Amino acid sequence: MSPRTPESTVPTAPESQDADARRFTRRSLFGASAGAAAAAIVSRTALAQEGDNLPPSIPEWQLEPGEETLSHPYGRPSKFEANVVRNYRHGLPEPLTRLSSFSLTPLQNLHGIVTPNGLHYERHHAGVPTIDPSEHRLMVHGLVERPLIFSMEDLTRFPSVSRIHFLECSGNTQNWGAPKAELTAQDTHGLLSCCEWTGVLLSTVLAEAGVKPEAKWMLAEGADAAAMTRSIPIEKALDDALLAYAQNGERLRPEQGYPLRLLLPGYEGNTNVKWLRRLKLGPEPFQTREETSKYTMLMPDGVARQFNFVMEAKSVITFPSGGQRLEAPGFYEISGLAWTGAGKVARVEVTTDGGASWRDAALQEPIMSKCLTRFRAPWDWGGGPARVASRATDETGYVQPTRETLLKVRDARSYYHYNGIQNWGVAAGGAVTNAG
Amino acid sequence: MSPRTPESTVPTAPESQDADARRFTRRSLFGASAGAAAAAIVSRTALAQEGDNLPPSIPEWQLEPGEETLSHPYGRPSKFEANVVRNYRHGLPEPLTRLSSFSLTPLQNLHGIVTPNGLHYERHHAGVPTIDPSEHRLMVHGLVERPLIFSMEDLTRFPSVSRIHFLECSGNTQNWGAPKAELTAQDTHGLLSCCEWTGVLLSTVLAEAGVKPEAKWMLAEGADAAAMTRSIPIEKALDDALLAYAQNGERLRPEQGYPLRLLLPGYEGNTNVKWLRRLKLGPEPFQTREETSKYTMLMPDGVARQFNFVMEAKSVITFPSGGQRLEAPGFYEISGLAWTGAGKVARVEVTTDGGASWRDAALQEPIMSKCLTRFRAPWDWGGGPARVASRATDETGYVQPTRETLLKVRDARSYYHYNGIQNWGVAAGGAVTNAG
Repeated sequence: MSPRTPESTVPTAPESQDADARRFTRRSLFGASAGAAAAAIVSRTALAQEGDNLPPSIPEWQLEPGEETLSHPYGRPSKFEANVVRNYRHGLPEPLTRLSSFSLTPLQNLHGIVTPNGLHYERHHAGVPTIDPSEHRLMVHGLVERPLIFSMEDLTRFPSVSRIHFLECSGNTQNWGAPKAELTAQDTHGLLSCCEWTGVLLSTVLAEAGVKPEAKWMLAEGADAAAMTRSIPIEKALDDALLAYAQNGERLRPEQGYPLRLLLPGYEGNTNVKWLRRLKLGPEPFQTREETSKYTMLMPDGVARQFNFVMEAKSVITFPSGGQRLEAPGFYEISGLAWTGAGKVARVEVTTDGGASWRDAALQEPIMSKCLTRFRAPWDWGGGPARVASRATDETGYVQPTRETLLKVRDARSYYHYNGIQNWGVAAGGAVTNAG
Repeated sequence: MSPRTPESTVPTAPESQDADARRFTRRSLFGASAGAAAAAIVSRTALAQEGDNLPPSIPEWQLEPGEETLSHPYGRPSKFEANVVRNYRHGLPEPLTRLSSFSLTPLQNLHGIVTPNGLHYERHHAGVPTIDPSEHRLMVHGLVERPLIFSMEDLTRFPSVSRIHFLECSGNTQNWGAPKAELTAQDTHGLLSCCEWTGVLLSTVLAEAGVKPEAKWMLAEGADAAAMTRSIPIEKALDDALLAYAQNGERLRPEQGYPLRLLLPGYEGNTNVKWLRRLKLGPEPFQTREETSKYTMLMPDGVARQFNFVMEAKSVITFPSGGQRLEAPGFYEISGLAWTGAGKVARVEVTTDGGASWRDAALQEPIMSKCLTRFRAPWDWGGGPARVASRATDETGYVQPTRETLLKVRDARSYYHYNGIQNWGVAAGGAVTNAG
């Protein structure tokens, strides 16, 4: 920026036709405070005052041509957004390798419900294979009338559908123990993303193969070096399961299973098998490594329950959230995400007093099934300590539990399916920290 | 890939628990043709036969670990999708500079309705400025009670909304003259994209400033070197206009106006002023360069009509479309996009015989206002010459016209707002070309 003088005129375009724009000085622009604003929410807005920071008449970037069109055939974010990236979880030791590892979506920096493909969370069991789509095949066999192998060209010939759905890793949100104050929403809830998925309904392809009546379960196997393998109930396979080959318009990203993944709306992330190469129908679960040694749910009596597919109703406030700061008392919009694997979000309530009182948040339309729902609620922060949290209710009537309630039905040594209410602490100075 | 033998066994994971998978040979897998498939559409599917191209037992990418998690904090497409990029229009001479230029979205490669941010079309008048968001300001002045300047922090403090809307350049689709056979859907319709936009309703900010009763028009000015400037009716400004700072979850891309753009749902692209720095309210249009020398509509009597804001109902088939090829007779899904600046798409019809007969396409839910709608229709291609086209009707009852009908109400030397029905020719060999 060129130097700024406190009493310089307001910004005006070089070719502007209206000389009026040059008349205003700092005083005339900021002499009046917000007054007869239409909405009550807005009238409580404490807009930051510019002080001595008036911009110069013409910003430097307007004085010369910018970067040429088509400088980036495939575009990229602004350099000023370089901090908005996937990351590992704060406070966890760096792993020796990241072959079986994860990366988290920066929820606290995002808006709306769509996750840009470059920021979709990752969870891999043996890294990301590089697959030539012309060589990739999907085999369908087992209890079917006609075992079949499909190329990607075959699969994209079928009738297709597009659906906007969230994906959440069952290991998202490790609040089973004492909360670590320094965690951000990315750390606590970032194994969560949402895209528009396009593909062929699995029921369409299974109709082609012919499902035998005795088929009750389906094995799904990935083409990664871990041969990631899960058993899926035939009812889900024939309901809304997708063989997805596109996300947010373009073909799948490599780390999302390029060129083909299973998409099981509302089911825990790992069952949405990536790099999908094989589906086998059988009479019972296949008892694979990933459903015996992992991805079970620990009950209070020490029993590990298998096949906990549906992600329960859950929500998280993304603003204000851990690591952020409220600069001054005044109006803020509380904003966050709610979701449920059981269908649609019916209601989200927010509290700013640690649960003593709750009020309804507004839900952004359209509210879609097994999809993130953005919620928002106005808040006039007085400047003192506060504790903000959200509570989701889904269309089945299920209400997101507190941590205490959750621990009554699950063992404290659990790892998966934590969906307790997330609290953020706001200190008197405005610093926001994780309160678990 | 390792060498393939025609009679090799089908793919099986190294850790697979079921030896059954090794039993199938090429014959057993492809001996049976599709039979008792549930859906009539599917039963007509002619799946490509593998022939001698059976995959090896284990693909090479499954034999060793893949790329580590978090290798790309901000992800990127597969190297096998390197051809899916924005591009300049086929057949147009290369410009000396691309400061005032455009790039097109590869519609023929996309699925669903969301355009990934990296592929959103571009149209700039003086290149893409690099703007430090902490230095960016928006001034609101003219016929308001309280002239105001806002920083980006101010604007993101306001209550926000998220909306999925298309943007279309008014210069999209140059079919006024004779069709060029070699054009793709990217060439003909690629100045069209669709994102989830998040920002503050302009009405919220204008309420803060206080609109004077005599304010009837609003000047919007960009912070690019062209000082891109347009006049907007106050009714639109107070209706659904957005001050948008995010697209598809993340902050705006530089070429989409980072850090702030005007978003006028349904209005021609250029009015959605990027790098927005100034809004001035006045009693009448400001008659800027971009609404006198450009962006007018030529009537049959030679008069140029100003202020043609709303993009009319329109549609395009993206498969099959120019440059693509149908490999063999059989089942195909016709797929495309429909949209209207007037609200929701009510109906899309398709023809495969050049308009002699039409039938309804299926519309993908949810159908949203001023948003792309994906349509699909099954087609059993007999292998002969065909002419495919789509026709959109919007909720006001407006029907997308043929080129001939359009030219009755507009001059043939027109440039903007071409929304005629798009025909693609399919030759006997399967080659698809632009038929205008």
